[in-house]
Amino acid sequence: MKLVCSKSNLLKSINISMKAVPSKTTMTILECILIDASSSQIKFISNDMELGIETIVEGMILEKGIVAADAKIFYEIIRRLPDNDVSIESDNNYTITITCEKANFKIPGKSGEDFTYLPIIERDHSLTLSQYTLKEMIRQTIFSIAVNENNPMMTGELIEIKDHYLKMVSLDGHRISIRRTELKKDYPETKAVVPGKTLNEISKILSGEMDDQVSIYFTKNHIMFEFDQTMVVSRLIEGEYFRVDHMLSNDYEIRVSVNKKEFLECIERSTLLVKEGDKKPIVVNLIDNQMEMRIDSALGSMREDINVEKEGKDIIIGFNPKFLADALRVIDDETIDIYMVNAKAPCFIKDEQEMYTYLILPVNINQNQYR
Amino acid sequence: MKLVCSKSNLLKSINISMKAVPSKTTMTILECILIDASSSQIKFISNDMELGIETIVEGMILEKGIVAADAKIFYEIIRRLPDNDVSIESDNNYTITITCEKANFKIPGKSGEDFTYLPIIERDHSLTLSQYTLKEMIRQTIFSIAVNENNPMMTGELIEIKDHYLKMVSLDGHRISIRRTELKKDYPETKAVVPGKTLNEISKILSGEMDDQVSIYFTKNHIMFEFDQTMVVSRLIEGEYFRVDHMLSNDYEIRVSVNKKEFLECIERSTLLVKEGDKKPIVVNLIDNQMEMRIDSALGSMREDINVEKEGKDIIIGFNPKFLADALRVIDDETIDIYMVNAKAPCFIKDEQEMYTYLILPVNINQNQYR
Repeated sequence: MKLVCSKSNLLKSINISMKAVPSKTTMTILECILIDASSSQIKFISNDMELGIETIVEGMILEKGIVAADAKIFYEIIRRLPDNDVSIESDNNYTITITCEKANFKIPGKSGEDFTYLPIIERDHSLTLSQYTLKEMIRQTIFSIAVNENNPMMTGELIEIKDHYLKMVSLDGHRISIRRTELKKDYPETKAVVPGKTLNEISKILSGEMDDQVSIYFTKNHIMFEFDQTMVVSRLIEGEYFRVDHMLSNDYEIRVSVNKKEFLECIERSTLLVKEGDKKPIVVNLIDNQMEMRIDSALGSMREDINVEKEGKDIIIGFNPKFLADALRVIDDETIDIYMVNAKAPCFIKDEQEMYTYLILPVNINQNQYR
Repeated sequence: MKLVCSKSNLLKSINISMKAVPSKTTMTILECILIDASSSQIKFISNDMELGIETIVEGMILEKGIVAADAKIFYEIIRRLPDNDVSIESDNNYTITITCEKANFKIPGKSGEDFTYLPIIERDHSLTLSQYTLKEMIRQTIFSIAVNENNPMMTGELIEIKDHYLKMVSLDGHRISIRRTELKKDYPETKAVVPGKTLNEISKILSGEMDDQVSIYFTKNHIMFEFDQTMVVSRLIEGEYFRVDHMLSNDYEIRVSVNKKEFLECIERSTLLVKEGDKKPIVVNLIDNQMEMRIDSALGSMREDINVEKEGKDIIIGFNPKFLADALRVIDDETIDIYMVNAKAPCFIKDEQEMYTYLILPVNINQNQYR
């Protein structure tokens, strides 16, 4: 095999491929990027058995062939080369020779025989949206999946297409995040639970540009994202997702409108006094149009008043400050609305069109202590 | 005690003070910044018993007093406050109340009774130079002090004033770094060995501006740096520094002139194939006006040719690539000169005026293998 590509094209494609190279594995072939120049295109393929990526590299094939290169060392070498054309050559022993200007590297490669190619996905059931929208929706929901949870369903996100809307849902037992976006066309109803890891890696590769498109294909066991010169295939999490609609409600006793930035900064200040792993709640004391926030810990105490617009009765309610802050950070609105029933019922942060809904369970506090 | 200072002034002074707050200590008072408003100025004092810092904070004293605040939590709170005036108040129980706009923090403080003030340094033996020069000289020598060395002398740097020159020297047994700068005035001859940690912290606080001055005072056991509103006092390392002049020589058999950037990039590429902790030398094979660099390791091999100007015979010589790279990174010249005698004698990188001299010991290699 012999190829010539520019350093910058190589680096871009390696960066994409690395997202499906596991950092630790017992199968050394998975630590490789397969360089496939057996047809008329140069493809880099990586596959950690859950997530697989195939990306086309612009360049010239001087001699067809296939070879697998250790991803990490391949990346490090290409990264350090001068900004010029790079020649990549493999011989019968799978030794890979990389040449750029006067620099010449030789590294051992592998035949790629035991490399697992990506599953073939039928392209008959797809959805197209802007890379910006997908990247944003992932960012705005991914934080509330559960990590290392005994319930694998909680480590993924529901992607649902229904009635001209795309919906993404994540939950971890203490909170639920929901984002919706309207679709331009009518697509058949679909539900899939996608591993959080896949969404994390995808969002790193997506350009995030409004004008760039991504197509999503669904099969029974897989989801495929196709964009630019890249295909990302992931297994789905098997089973039925939680019936989230049953946990939502539009009833409320108290509605508070508050400046998001002011509220978030106050919460961030309050967490200074909470040691990691400590579960100190922030106590929100709503009296008329004043929201007093307070936290008391071994490190000290904090009090801060915020002006709000309130509808309904006064309330004292406790929250895990991290859960509030996580939701507030991904909301772009200047003013947000918080809906509450009582100190023990779920609290909702949502907009009028319910393009976003964040449900947060309050923390039990001793009410008498704060009156 | 009661003070009012702007958030930005407080933050600047805390950042400086933190440099002398130890990250781990059994004496909890050392984890504090002493807020001393007992006279007409607000001073923040920190002291880890080797390094002490006193810095003046601009602000208003409404009530005189002294209190010690835990540095880390004090820093975190101030950092998160709105950008406005901050009031700091302490009561008889040393509780510190920090107020800014509507935010109100209370943290426990200490009396500061057992706090160690900085030693008093007589200001009779000083040197003044630009902060830029001092910061640069530290950067250009600090990398070759020894870390955790059994010989404490190697963990410091020699600062020597002699014949209108300031000289800084560091060495670790494999290499020596020397930088010199001409002084505008004649100062009395002085020698002091300053801990590397002090120089590291000082260089973080120095503005690095050509127009900003720093004064340096020497006593038998201490060195003091005075600049802007800040005083930094450090213990010296006791004893006689190595007689470096005996290790230097102006004799050479081979002189090579090489483009620094090209040489450095080539060395950085070669180190990709060296696993950390592995002591693979880079082999430099000089034939006429070609310098071939090669490295062979379990990960692969590299060859690269560089055009050079050579005076003297051909040579094959091995180096620790890190030692070469460290020196090259801090030299600003476009072309550098390397002086060698043979494959076993020290190699020198230096300019004509010897404003910088880097001595590097070669690594033993099997000469026959590379012919």
